[in-house]
Amino acid sequence: MIKTDILIIGAGPTGLFAVFEAGLLKLKCHLIDALPQAGGQCAEIYPKKPIYDIPGFPEILAGDLVNNLMEQIKSFQPGFTLGERAETIKKLDDGTFVVITNKGTEHHAPIVAIAGGLGSFEPRKPLLHNLSKYEDNGVAYMIKDPEVYRNKRVVIAGGGDSALDWSIFLADVAAQVTLVHRRNEFRGALDSVEKVQELKNQGKLNLITPAEIIALNGEDILESVLIRKISDAKEELVLEVDHFIPLFGLSPKLGPIGDWGLEIEKNAIKVDTFDYQTNIPGIYAIGDVNTYPGKLKLILCGFHEATLMCQSAFQKIHPDKKYVMKYTTVGGVSGFDGTKKEAPKAVVKKIE
Amino acid sequence: MIKTDILIIGAGPTGLFAVFEAGLLKLKCHLIDALPQAGGQCAEIYPKKPIYDIPGFPEILAGDLVNNLMEQIKSFQPGFTLGERAETIKKLDDGTFVVITNKGTEHHAPIVAIAGGLGSFEPRKPLLHNLSKYEDNGVAYMIKDPEVYRNKRVVIAGGGDSALDWSIFLADVAAQVTLVHRRNEFRGALDSVEKVQELKNQGKLNLITPAEIIALNGEDILESVLIRKISDAKEELVLEVDHFIPLFGLSPKLGPIGDWGLEIEKNAIKVDTFDYQTNIPGIYAIGDVNTYPGKLKLILCGFHEATLMCQSAFQKIHPDKKYVMKYTTVGGVSGFDGTKKEAPKAVVKKIE
Repeated sequence: MIKTDILIIGAGPTGLFAVFEAGLLKLKCHLIDALPQAGGQCAEIYPKKPIYDIPGFPEILAGDLVNNLMEQIKSFQPGFTLGERAETIKKLDDGTFVVITNKGTEHHAPIVAIAGGLGSFEPRKPLLHNLSKYEDNGVAYMIKDPEVYRNKRVVIAGGGDSALDWSIFLADVAAQVTLVHRRNEFRGALDSVEKVQELKNQGKLNLITPAEIIALNGEDILESVLIRKISDAKEELVLEVDHFIPLFGLSPKLGPIGDWGLEIEKNAIKVDTFDYQTNIPGIYAIGDVNTYPGKLKLILCGFHEATLMCQSAFQKIHPDKKYVMKYTTVGGVSGFDGTKKEAPKAVVKKIE
Repeated sequence: MIKTDILIIGAGPTGLFAVFEAGLLKLKCHLIDALPQAGGQCAEIYPKKPIYDIPGFPEILAGDLVNNLMEQIKSFQPGFTLGERAETIKKLDDGTFVVITNKGTEHHAPIVAIAGGLGSFEPRKPLLHNLSKYEDNGVAYMIKDPEVYRNKRVVIAGGGDSALDWSIFLADVAAQVTLVHRRNEFRGALDSVEKVQELKNQGKLNLITPAEIIALNGEDILESVLIRKISDAKEELVLEVDHFIPLFGLSPKLGPIGDWGLEIEKNAIKVDTFDYQTNIPGIYAIGDVNTYPGKLKLILCGFHEATLMCQSAFQKIHPDKKYVMKYTTVGGVSGFDGTKKEAPKAVVKKIE
């Protein structure tokens, strides 16, 4: 059982910054995220896209923002349960919570902060009748560890950035990469499109368009896919593969959190702006996942909400302590790893 | 008469970021600040000190944060009335406001956003009976334009960073710099203290300690100061000078804004967290100057407040328009100067 002070569900920018504000209050955090890495949408969906409305950054790539936040919270040593989705919550008699993921990992904390963004991003799946049989047996919807595909035969389906980028990446890793798309046209960054064209010209990547995968075959694990060309002839071909990776995008779903007894309004969790607490005392919701009058789903608003949430969490965890806020410029930042960052102190010195 | 959409009183980080959020909504801003430059405390009091709790910056110097914000809002071409204090406000029959500064500059806007920080920073003044006679006639409490002192004889009083830094700076500009302090010990950055010691050793700076200035003399303008050594002998000396600059620190005062009919609680302006509006419709208060249940005086909270304020201001200015928020990553940022920043667009391209 993983134990912490504040269990944060969702490791996007808001959840990450909550670790920092909690750390200033000497509270430890652990984060659960369904994605294989921290950063939420910023890392998964648009890491190379610029954001212009983070205060103090005239422009910052979403991936760089995540990296900066990871650096900012590093000394507070957050724990992570990644690639698992928070599934159930149980309130114990002493008012603390146990949260269990879809893989059975148990977490225990007095405070739960849901920073789930638009929800857990669920992959859009192709409509193939025996798809679920091959999940984790050759079919995957996101690539967690590219090494899995070394020297394997891989077929990727999709026509966007993910399909392009992973085809490029795996062309160097896999024994064979086939990219299947329903159209001849791809939609993505110019250099990605050009790189795929180049790999195709060099014979390092098979391209089958316009086409779609219409059946999966294999005894226990995936052994081949059936591809149908989209044309008058509807020509079909069988391709022997080890892996099929449909990359049709992600769609956000509030998911199991929607069944936790929280007040929900328009797919978001209602909170009080005093401390961003939900209707269940001890459970907070911060960032895009919450709603209140005037709510804007902006990263900078999540930062504010995380900060006020931590103050309230501190009072709950330490009802007898009075916390006096110290500015970081004055008090510095003392990490849990023994590091201390602080402004150079003024000296008092005689001049003679 | 200066006309704008949102008149922002206070050009600290919160006021500056409000320009950005207003700009996204195509609203123009003008800022008034009593200090001679934008940036508020960050620029005036601690420009070289690191801040550790700005989200996304593991560490940033306060002065750099201000520079970044100025860069971020540049394309929205804010106007500035600097070195003047907002003194009076008048609500016109049409519900718009006229704000007049202590120097008589008039500003007209439908929305006023007070981002006054802890108030206007008023210099702490020495107790000298005829001090006010020489204000602007040889006595100044802050240095707006160092060129004023070129080839002049200057006496600075104080023992902190401001006194040290300006003594160092003016040693190269003025004909003569004398630094007077009540103690032999100075309190400041180590390199500043060492630099003053060095200038003194080189004879480029006169140091008189422990001592204080006890009288000012001169017909119409300042001609000399009387300095008394703090010792048993209480030796006194007359020093002929053109300028006397007491740098005894700044102390924040809500100032004239306190008389505008706004609900005040503990020296801060009460607001509703829905949109950070005060009890007077059309007047908002954002950043350190406001208060509400759970308020934290943090820069990152000011950013959030400024953002929600702008949405509400937009509705007031354009009651018939419905604004649909677009993410900057998706919609880019269109400056009032014709510039456009935006993420590289995806291409749709055939691969063959």
